[in-house]
Amino acid sequence: MKAKKAGAGKPIAVLKERLVEIAYLSSVGQVLGWDQEVHMPEKGADARAAASALISGIVHKKMVALDDDGLLSSLKKQLDAKQVKGKDAVIVAETWRSWQRQKKLPEAFVTELSETVAKAQHVWARARKENDFKTFLLWLTKIVELKRKEAALVGFQDSPYDALLDSFEPGLTAKDAAVILNDLKDFLVPFLKELQRSRAKADPKRLRGVFPLEKQVAFNRRVAEAMGFDFAAGRMDQSTHPFTTTFHTQDVRITTRFREDDVLYAVGSTIHETGHALYEQGLPSEHFGTPLGETVSLGIHESQSRLWENMIGKSKEFWRYFYPKLRKEFPKPFKEVPLDEFMRIINAVQPSLIRTEADEVTYNLHIILRFEIEKELIEGVIDPTDLPAVWRAKMKEYLGVTVPDDARGVLQDVHWSAGYFGYFPTYTLGNLYAAQFYAAMERDIPDLAERIARGDFATPREWLRKKIHLHGKTYEAAKLVKRVTGEPPTSRYFIDYLKAKYK
Amino acid sequence: MKAKKAGAGKPIAVLKERLVEIAYLSSVGQVLGWDQEVHMPEKGADARAAASALISGIVHKKMVALDDDGLLSSLKKQLDAKQVKGKDAVIVAETWRSWQRQKKLPEAFVTELSETVAKAQHVWARARKENDFKTFLLWLTKIVELKRKEAALVGFQDSPYDALLDSFEPGLTAKDAAVILNDLKDFLVPFLKELQRSRAKADPKRLRGVFPLEKQVAFNRRVAEAMGFDFAAGRMDQSTHPFTTTFHTQDVRITTRFREDDVLYAVGSTIHETGHALYEQGLPSEHFGTPLGETVSLGIHESQSRLWENMIGKSKEFWRYFYPKLRKEFPKPFKEVPLDEFMRIINAVQPSLIRTEADEVTYNLHIILRFEIEKELIEGVIDPTDLPAVWRAKMKEYLGVTVPDDARGVLQDVHWSAGYFGYFPTYTLGNLYAAQFYAAMERDIPDLAERIARGDFATPREWLRKKIHLHGKTYEAAKLVKRVTGEPPTSRYFIDYLKAKYK
Repeated sequence: MKAKKAGAGKPIAVLKERLVEIAYLSSVGQVLGWDQEVHMPEKGADARAAASALISGIVHKKMVALDDDGLLSSLKKQLDAKQVKGKDAVIVAETWRSWQRQKKLPEAFVTELSETVAKAQHVWARARKENDFKTFLLWLTKIVELKRKEAALVGFQDSPYDALLDSFEPGLTAKDAAVILNDLKDFLVPFLKELQRSRAKADPKRLRGVFPLEKQVAFNRRVAEAMGFDFAAGRMDQSTHPFTTTFHTQDVRITTRFREDDVLYAVGSTIHETGHALYEQGLPSEHFGTPLGETVSLGIHESQSRLWENMIGKSKEFWRYFYPKLRKEFPKPFKEVPLDEFMRIINAVQPSLIRTEADEVTYNLHIILRFEIEKELIEGVIDPTDLPAVWRAKMKEYLGVTVPDDARGVLQDVHWSAGYFGYFPTYTLGNLYAAQFYAAMERDIPDLAERIARGDFATPREWLRKKIHLHGKTYEAAKLVKRVTGEPPTSRYFIDYLKAKYK
Repeated sequence: MKAKKAGAGKPIAVLKERLVEIAYLSSVGQVLGWDQEVHMPEKGADARAAASALISGIVHKKMVALDDDGLLSSLKKQLDAKQVKGKDAVIVAETWRSWQRQKKLPEAFVTELSETVAKAQHVWARARKENDFKTFLLWLTKIVELKRKEAALVGFQDSPYDALLDSFEPGLTAKDAAVILNDLKDFLVPFLKELQRSRAKADPKRLRGVFPLEKQVAFNRRVAEAMGFDFAAGRMDQSTHPFTTTFHTQDVRITTRFREDDVLYAVGSTIHETGHALYEQGLPSEHFGTPLGETVSLGIHESQSRLWENMIGKSKEFWRYFYPKLRKEFPKPFKEVPLDEFMRIINAVQPSLIRTEADEVTYNLHIILRFEIEKELIEGVIDPTDLPAVWRAKMKEYLGVTVPDDARGVLQDVHWSAGYFGYFPTYTLGNLYAAQFYAAMERDIPDLAERIARGDFATPREWLRKKIHLHGKTYEAAKLVKRVTGEPPTSRYFIDYLKAKYK
């Protein structure tokens, strides 16, 4: 006979069991979503939307039902009376928070939203391909309506946008976000102008060539592997928009996309997604399903991808290690480009159309634009019909760029078609956290640069794992930043980083 | 305001709604299974097993719950009183039959079985690769135990194997199956001996070469496309064991496997799986989820794949059309092999180790062997430990073949690791049905051979669609055969077909 697990049957153990079941069902939704983006044939869209909606509905129902027998409320009372402590306290507090949100959303609403975004993503992909905003408009209007309804159901104080932000970056309000983003804008706009006046031109065409897909895939796999991505517990595939999705710490999937004439197009996105994936693969497996096995917030998640993509992946040390390999694989054109010139080109600052291809300086202006637009969409200040015009005007104003078509304008990102309103500001938060984490890592590991230059990526990865990944959701974002870096979140490190890099 | 659908809210409409929901949830299980075979990283196996088991449990629960409010019983009463008619009668009768079976299986049992086979399939794949029966034995023993338990729960008259057969080929008993298979054995054994004495030798090495994977994939796609596989409503991928899985008529997925030195290895399996897929893509979409939108039985399913694979795909007409294309794609070695010799080689009769590679004469001896073994496993007459020895002895006795290792012996098929006991006999039924259907098709379409020779595959496909696919589960297997061919199922056409082909 098997011995009963210690503590089984206790309320906290019952809660954990239920959470694990919900997590597995959620992961089923992730599998459906991954397949949809990576493999699903076009005509499968409607059936997939129906199936995804059913799973969302079941997950939601089970989440709401956590307190049907009073289990959660009674644990919450114990928590408030300090009778639940340590790791269990994290589980109860975080579950209570999500449950509070979920129970306000009726199942029919959740199903409708899920079904709508599943279909809309297919429409969006085609609309982007065919540069056809009108087709997408109908769906976008419907999604904005649903997200406004969600905000109304969840409740908010100042702006309905607060209710949406909260699900991606717990505790962040539209007002806070505006302060951070405006501060940054105050620095970035003059800084960008100065850079554009003073900086030596770099010619990206020097890095163009013909890079066969198969060899690119192999090189990207090699980079991900070197960073520590575990291919026995994950995959790398192709999709229109690169993403990372997690079914379990033991099955984490990243996607990238390729351009035949530009090998770095894929490499940058692979490093970024691998940064996300290392966070997911680094979560403690034994806590799968509970908040202890979950990531903190999207801002913290993005800090992991951006730290790898920019602080490490665009550093001279990184390329001191990888450039000889890149040259060997693709002698044309890299044999003719010295490392110094290569570094200037990959770090060139040049206002451009596409967020995911933007440099580190202009990137956050793309975010500010999206933040302002989506906030006003949700607040009902602007109408979806006006989006292309608003987009063009702001791109001109902030980046000085003329948008030639909607495919490279308002249709470029997957987020709105997926219903992710309130997601964009977390990208900038991620940049700020990343710079702050990296400064701390440099203090902790004095020979970090030399280690990276000889391909030792285990050292930064294990630092991140120990300081961040292994703690799951134990600390809220601001607390975690304070704990890891000794200071509350600040934009100072990011600004210092940019100044140091570009002066 | 949208008008309410006519008949909505009526008991039969409510039943249909519930069935469609169950079908979508089942399809989610299919997605998990497909991903598991085609893409899942190794370490993801445990999490996938847990997720699949949860979905199986939910599907089972919803199936059993169909009558919680008496809906199904009351419809069954109306059916018995002839108040439910036509298509609705099919829905009620078939749902009643499945429900009767499902309600006897407790949810915990269904979940345990699902979780066990999900894990076991991974173990099997590795065991086969490493020729390691012992590792798999533990899991096989567990699965046999569970299937014996399933038989006991479902109930049976003569043999527990009857209860398992019934879920693949409704109504078929072990006794019936034994009669059919022994009759066929009585013909096949002397026929095979005669062939081996009399037939000119064909040298399969003449068709060997070096066939790059990419070109093979392209050629296989072309064959599937020519047959009418809709790639906008399906995919073709690779897996260890070729299979077809259906998420919806609009998302049907086939897999194949490749050998670098033998292009026909993949082509044969592609034609076979495409035959299955055409059946699934040919089901009436508007009846998705109800028995009217489902396939009749595994035997009928297999008749579709075998008709395409053998009656059409190994005919001279088929290759009159495709051989020039094959020669153009792979001049080496096919330019040097005349069509007549090619036909002799691909139709050569040669006892061999692997069922899926067997010729049309010896194939059914492979089935008879498996049928006898699995029946006795389930009846408890033989023990899983003895399987390799029993396998070797029977292979020697029926086919005169010495089995060199378990990878090419008892470990070759996926079925037992998936818990599919009772599945094998349907392969032979499929062969018999296929020959009978094809004889009827030839009578209906006098110029069928010429049509195929000019690449007109739409004619046989549409005949099958009209006569078989579009009817879903309206007719039971034997009734359908009678309706399509004018006669009850008989082995006569298959025997005549073999005699005509090999004399």
